[in-house]
Amino acid sequence: MTPPTEEPYGDMTPEDFRIHAHRLVDWITDYLTHSDRYPVLSRVSPGQIRNALPASAPEAPEPFEKIFDDFERILLPGITHWNHPGFMAYFAITGSAPGVLGELLCAALNVQAMLWRTSPSATELEVTVLSWLRQLLGLPSVFEGVIYDTASISSLHALAAARERAVPEVRTKGLSAHSDQPELRIYCSEQAHSSIDKAVILLGLGHRALRRIPVDSSFRMEPNQLASAIIEDRAAKHQPFAVVATVGTTSTTSVDPVTAIADICTTERLWLHVDAAYAGVAAIVPKLRGALDGCERADSIVVNPHKWLFTPFDLSALYCRHMSVLRSAFSLTPEYLQSNEEEGAVNLMDTGVQLGRRFRALKLWMVLRSFGAKSLRTHLQRHVDLAHQFATWVDSHTDFERMAPVPFSVVCFRANPSCNKLESAALDTLNEKLLEAINSSGEVFLSHTRLHGQFVLRLAIGHIRTNEDHVKRAWLLLQEHAAPLFACQSSDHSTTESGSLSG
Amino acid sequence: MTPPTEEPYGDMTPEDFRIHAHRLVDWITDYLTHSDRYPVLSRVSPGQIRNALPASAPEAPEPFEKIFDDFERILLPGITHWNHPGFMAYFAITGSAPGVLGELLCAALNVQAMLWRTSPSATELEVTVLSWLRQLLGLPSVFEGVIYDTASISSLHALAAARERAVPEVRTKGLSAHSDQPELRIYCSEQAHSSIDKAVILLGLGHRALRRIPVDSSFRMEPNQLASAIIEDRAAKHQPFAVVATVGTTSTTSVDPVTAIADICTTERLWLHVDAAYAGVAAIVPKLRGALDGCERADSIVVNPHKWLFTPFDLSALYCRHMSVLRSAFSLTPEYLQSNEEEGAVNLMDTGVQLGRRFRALKLWMVLRSFGAKSLRTHLQRHVDLAHQFATWVDSHTDFERMAPVPFSVVCFRANPSCNKLESAALDTLNEKLLEAINSSGEVFLSHTRLHGQFVLRLAIGHIRTNEDHVKRAWLLLQEHAAPLFACQSSDHSTTESGSLSG
Repeated sequence: MTPPTEEPYGDMTPEDFRIHAHRLVDWITDYLTHSDRYPVLSRVSPGQIRNALPASAPEAPEPFEKIFDDFERILLPGITHWNHPGFMAYFAITGSAPGVLGELLCAALNVQAMLWRTSPSATELEVTVLSWLRQLLGLPSVFEGVIYDTASISSLHALAAARERAVPEVRTKGLSAHSDQPELRIYCSEQAHSSIDKAVILLGLGHRALRRIPVDSSFRMEPNQLASAIIEDRAAKHQPFAVVATVGTTSTTSVDPVTAIADICTTERLWLHVDAAYAGVAAIVPKLRGALDGCERADSIVVNPHKWLFTPFDLSALYCRHMSVLRSAFSLTPEYLQSNEEEGAVNLMDTGVQLGRRFRALKLWMVLRSFGAKSLRTHLQRHVDLAHQFATWVDSHTDFERMAPVPFSVVCFRANPSCNKLESAALDTLNEKLLEAINSSGEVFLSHTRLHGQFVLRLAIGHIRTNEDHVKRAWLLLQEHAAPLFACQSSDHSTTESGSLSG
Repeated sequence: MTPPTEEPYGDMTPEDFRIHAHRLVDWITDYLTHSDRYPVLSRVSPGQIRNALPASAPEAPEPFEKIFDDFERILLPGITHWNHPGFMAYFAITGSAPGVLGELLCAALNVQAMLWRTSPSATELEVTVLSWLRQLLGLPSVFEGVIYDTASISSLHALAAARERAVPEVRTKGLSAHSDQPELRIYCSEQAHSSIDKAVILLGLGHRALRRIPVDSSFRMEPNQLASAIIEDRAAKHQPFAVVATVGTTSTTSVDPVTAIADICTTERLWLHVDAAYAGVAAIVPKLRGALDGCERADSIVVNPHKWLFTPFDLSALYCRHMSVLRSAFSLTPEYLQSNEEEGAVNLMDTGVQLGRRFRALKLWMVLRSFGAKSLRTHLQRHVDLAHQFATWVDSHTDFERMAPVPFSVVCFRANPSCNKLESAALDTLNEKLLEAINSSGEVFLSHTRLHGQFVLRLAIGHIRTNEDHVKRAWLLLQEHAAPLFACQSSDHSTTESGSLSG
């Protein structure tokens, strides 16, 4: 064997790496403990970061101390802190400690999980941890799993497989070549995620192939409306081929009636894809097991451990009942990637458009083992409890109102002063101002959506360090910043101490 | 501000994290220095890793010591060491020390670069480092850049933009709805990467829409053949819309004549996409600047810093001259992602199908600054010199032959005993056995391809610690393992000491 060389790798010697990495670990330990010392939403202006950076790359190597100093001085103020317990916008996520260790090791190994032989452990650990997760979710073993980067890509692959099954020879002939090919139709609810639109556009189906089915008062797809739409489309000589149901929509986390939708899909022979990117993991909690009811009948289902399972971004898991369809859509092995392995060697590159694949399973393995299933369940249940607690405060306050049910850890609500009945547009403006005000506080970051055309605030709990104090604080800030916006003359609407509501 | 809580985040306390991370840093320092202590190609059998792992996730938390012990005991033997100086298969890559530090920090921050406000630094650093890289490559400023995960996804987006420009209303109406829409045609060489096939299939064009143009004796696309194919397709009422030229094909790293192809694309009004995923970065080296000749006229071009620019996987850069076309193909902002920023705030999610985006720019920034442009150039030139040195040894040996030119750092060659003229099939078998034998050594890992139907070995240099010793050692191993396969009676074909060839 070649003796180890004394050359530095790169222009940072191993000993340099050791020193800088140890310092970085200390900084990160502090950051993970006290990230709430920073304003959660960055306060910089557009162009501010860019203007502070040199226009060109340096010619000479720069010491890491200087690079890290620039990170702290220039970049850190421009970071919106997703790993902050006051982050309650969009879907809150967590880069947990074991997950960060997994990413560090993954970067150092820098392996590709494209072929079995390019790192057997990467392929086999992926199969193993996806089996672990499937069992925790209560999904049957007929589902085979594969890891992609994002739910956008998972759903894209699921719908590509659905297209493969629906259109004969689409792989070879494409869509335009079939003069007798009816226009395809696919269905999702009005509340489904924009990634479904993007997938449909990318697949060449055209955006109008996606029909958005109306929802009930709880923002769940109306199965009757779905059935009618299919009848209508068949009458118009279109070809329905797939339905996307959502478990945990992005606005309100509503859950489509998957069982009723599955019945329709069975009758109509449509591919059922379930987007459970956010809420799917809730099914590991006994009380929330019902979240995936009916999903055992789906053709494919996506859940994102990088959303609500404490795994650093990115890691999206697609489970598919017909992985062979997905493979027949994409499998394509040029000579330079041929390998004659013994039986049993799966090449995961055959399951997707991306040839290069990170060793993402490593961090999920570390997260699942380091937490253990029991504490993962405890954390998810705790987040749901916190959301319900917040919802109770909203419900019992005369100047706030809840705008949607709370099946998981997201609360949709708005301020609506009882002293001063406002028109819809004025209410929107008030809530926009309120959102801006509390986000400017730096202590919490909430986002918004629109429901029935109305501007609605969203409080999303998903960070592992978010506890009752943070939620109380958010509630206090909301009341404090809302009062001056109410334009009420009485003093009845002063801030209520949130603590008194929690007892 | 909420006082820092004393609760552990996850079930690993901050102090636990500190301890485990420091130990991991020491392990990684050792690994980056001495990864060549491990056999580069894993020796496990299919199923071996999986069978050594528990069938289900643990219920209770497990100590990190135990998890890491299992990593070393179970997973490490199943790792093929991409971060090993003897890795000379496919395209050799490097997770360099500053890149690993960048990934560590990225995982801890866990930010999303989807909207400007979700971390202004992530968006603005991405714009900045892509401008730095563009300048180093000598591309004009008309090219706007965006980071994706892989070249597969970069090329997919480029071709989606080309389709957007070619087919009116494809976004809305799709491909099948146009009864008057001719079949689309796209061109690449016989040597282009399989990611182009997958993109064409995914986009709904059908695999037959991709015409593979013959190559010359140096594996470069024949522009005359391209021109003829276009004429032929127009005569058949098809609609040519794009050409993919490759700078550094995967088999031989050949370079298509981009200038001649650009001339054709200009005349024929076709989108020119350049796949320079591997070799594009060579353009930062003065002697190799010609690599991107003609690419300044491309509509889009992909280069992968995670291939030959010492950046841990994944980071692919797409440069596009018409990013507005890409945006009009994909931009789609649901209410929950609306943000009213000041002018100048770019939302990178509008440039792609993936909503979630890692803060990938951070590691590239650290790599570019830590190395500095000058030493990056030195390393690339050094790799090319090593490849040329190896090619010289092959050329001067009577029992080996070179099978393709060496424009960059990859050598295609095979054993062909002078004592024993073998049929083509027998030569293939001999070289397959030779490849298996030297890969079994554990010291180096080479891969293969087929050129003109013949089995050819590939030696790819791209790891930062690969030096002359490793290349000499590969050459010695090749000779040692070839001799017994030659079935020659004379003793002329004993191993030549490689050292004597290098002088």
